[in-house]
Amino acid sequence: METIDDVGEFGLIARVQARLPLTSPDTLVPAGDDAAVLAAPDGRLAVSSDVLLEGRHFRRDWSGPRDIGHKAAAQNFSDIAAMGGVPTSLLLSMVLPGDLPVAWVEEFAEGVAAECAPLGVIVAGGDMVRGDLITISVTVLGTLEGRPPVLRSGARPGDTVAVAGRLGWSAAGLEMLQSGEEIGREPGDGAAQAKGGATEAQPEDSSAPQPADYLAAHLRPSPPYAAGPEAARAGATAMLDVSDGLLADLRHLAVASGVAVDVDSTRLALAPGPRLDQMLTGGEDHALVATFAPDAALPAGWRPIGTVHEGGASVTVDGKPWNGPGGFSHFGHSE
Amino acid sequence: METIDDVGEFGLIARVQARLPLTSPDTLVPAGDDAAVLAAPDGRLAVSSDVLLEGRHFRRDWSGPRDIGHKAAAQNFSDIAAMGGVPTSLLLSMVLPGDLPVAWVEEFAEGVAAECAPLGVIVAGGDMVRGDLITISVTVLGTLEGRPPVLRSGARPGDTVAVAGRLGWSAAGLEMLQSGEEIGREPGDGAAQAKGGATEAQPEDSSAPQPADYLAAHLRPSPPYAAGPEAARAGATAMLDVSDGLLADLRHLAVASGVAVDVDSTRLALAPGPRLDQMLTGGEDHALVATFAPDAALPAGWRPIGTVHEGGASVTVDGKPWNGPGGFSHFGHSE
Repeated sequence: METIDDVGEFGLIARVQARLPLTSPDTLVPAGDDAAVLAAPDGRLAVSSDVLLEGRHFRRDWSGPRDIGHKAAAQNFSDIAAMGGVPTSLLLSMVLPGDLPVAWVEEFAEGVAAECAPLGVIVAGGDMVRGDLITISVTVLGTLEGRPPVLRSGARPGDTVAVAGRLGWSAAGLEMLQSGEEIGREPGDGAAQAKGGATEAQPEDSSAPQPADYLAAHLRPSPPYAAGPEAARAGATAMLDVSDGLLADLRHLAVASGVAVDVDSTRLALAPGPRLDQMLTGGEDHALVATFAPDAALPAGWRPIGTVHEGGASVTVDGKPWNGPGGFSHFGHSE
Repeated sequence: METIDDVGEFGLIARVQARLPLTSPDTLVPAGDDAAVLAAPDGRLAVSSDVLLEGRHFRRDWSGPRDIGHKAAAQNFSDIAAMGGVPTSLLLSMVLPGDLPVAWVEEFAEGVAAECAPLGVIVAGGDMVRGDLITISVTVLGTLEGRPPVLRSGARPGDTVAVAGRLGWSAAGLEMLQSGEEIGREPGDGAAQAKGGATEAQPEDSSAPQPADYLAAHLRPSPPYAAGPEAARAGATAMLDVSDGLLADLRHLAVASGVAVDVDSTRLALAPGPRLDQMLTGGEDHALVATFAPDAALPAGWRPIGTVHEGGASVTVDGKPWNGPGGFSHFGHSE
């Protein structure tokens, strides 16, 4: 099988670029020069970076290359949505083993491209170097479309806490993989085999999810991108992306806003879904959580799950501290 | 010694952020939210990414953490200068071993900060995850200050080829390190010990460089950032950053512009310096090479080294193909 060592750096770049969206009306100079030049129509750009590391954020025996491509793009796009913005471009840098099949990288690029396509995001640059473990570093740029950014720091006592997207699905899927429950999949087949619905634009929380849905959700998160700008237009006072787990991320909001947040567990249990602890502490679904003034009408796709109170940066569930397992931390320290 | 595992992710982020420049008048939302928001005063942003991998782009026994911080920032800033722009912010993502001393990361951050300071660049975000080998991924954003970008594709027959900055110094320093010539340095002491002058704004090519200068140039490149915008203002027709080696990078220019480029070796030898093959093929000094119309006055710091001709994307030295060693390629395939 043809490997990266066989085709060399420039050969690999050409093969990857052929599979990526490289231009848009806002791409003034595409990738290929020393730098790309991108339009910033409202005079601002939102920007964020994330790293995915083999063995830590994905396993090649669980996730296919297309899954990993989707995930690398999705977790970054979600950060822009959480500001109330719309992603427009990304830069993709990778460390890749020299004996990795070129086909793996091509399929990874196709996953990135598929996640980009509905949003019109283009790939504006990146770098590829040879190394031992697959390491994927993505920087995403986005536009706020003239709106003020929705920060973590704007929540006020009395505000409603609301969520858009899935909670705990990815954690439930990961638990299946870790316990070997999933059956009938070839290694690395990924979400495409597990369930085609993983890339649908909006989750349907009203129908009872099946195990294959959780698995697909873990392999390919399906963030509710459009809910971010919709929340911003509806006057959300604070917002962020649930990447570390609902309680851990609400704590970031509580600290930044100087408020207390209480989650109503009966609200989380309204629809059939993962266990409560998975919904409270599972990360990587990239749901959005936001706060809205008490009299604000929640936009479609948003559901109330709690209330903001006066207090000292605490997060409680039904008025009490959560005593279940903690949130996810890259360096293994729970919050 | 305190390690990353001891302080955890959030502890490490705090320690690193304390050493980095995080705000500027153009920083509308600094790092710390889901995304930063940056002003793009002329409605555009130039953007580029690079990866540095331990064992491939640096060795901890040769380069100190401050050196590596300088280098990671410099090689990205140079890409913006090569468009005629000015870097304004960067995003810094790192894979770091859990047993790495926190002090190493702090000193790395101080190196990044020192490279940022003269330019007023801020750090707008990033990510840190634990892994086996130090991997540094930098994305840089910059402004063109209202000017058109200077591309690789604008060179025309008759144009003068000119260079700003050092050629071959880094390669000469690397050769010293590889042959064990360098004496009297403690491992990892870096450029600060080798020679204080490594971070001077402009190299002085008219004085004879010493071995310690080459060593310092390898450990901490000193790109001629200001020469990029100056070339743009002077009407440069094409420009790029010499990262892979003069001949390899001129070939990119020749291909993009559809021209032939001839380098005059007597011009390169006008001042005392590295060997001709080091000047022609050594990368990583991040000199700038540009083309100017025949009647253009070269800005200060730029020196003519060749001429653009009609022809098919070839690069020659004194009218002949160069038969010495080839340019640098990340995947080991020379051009």
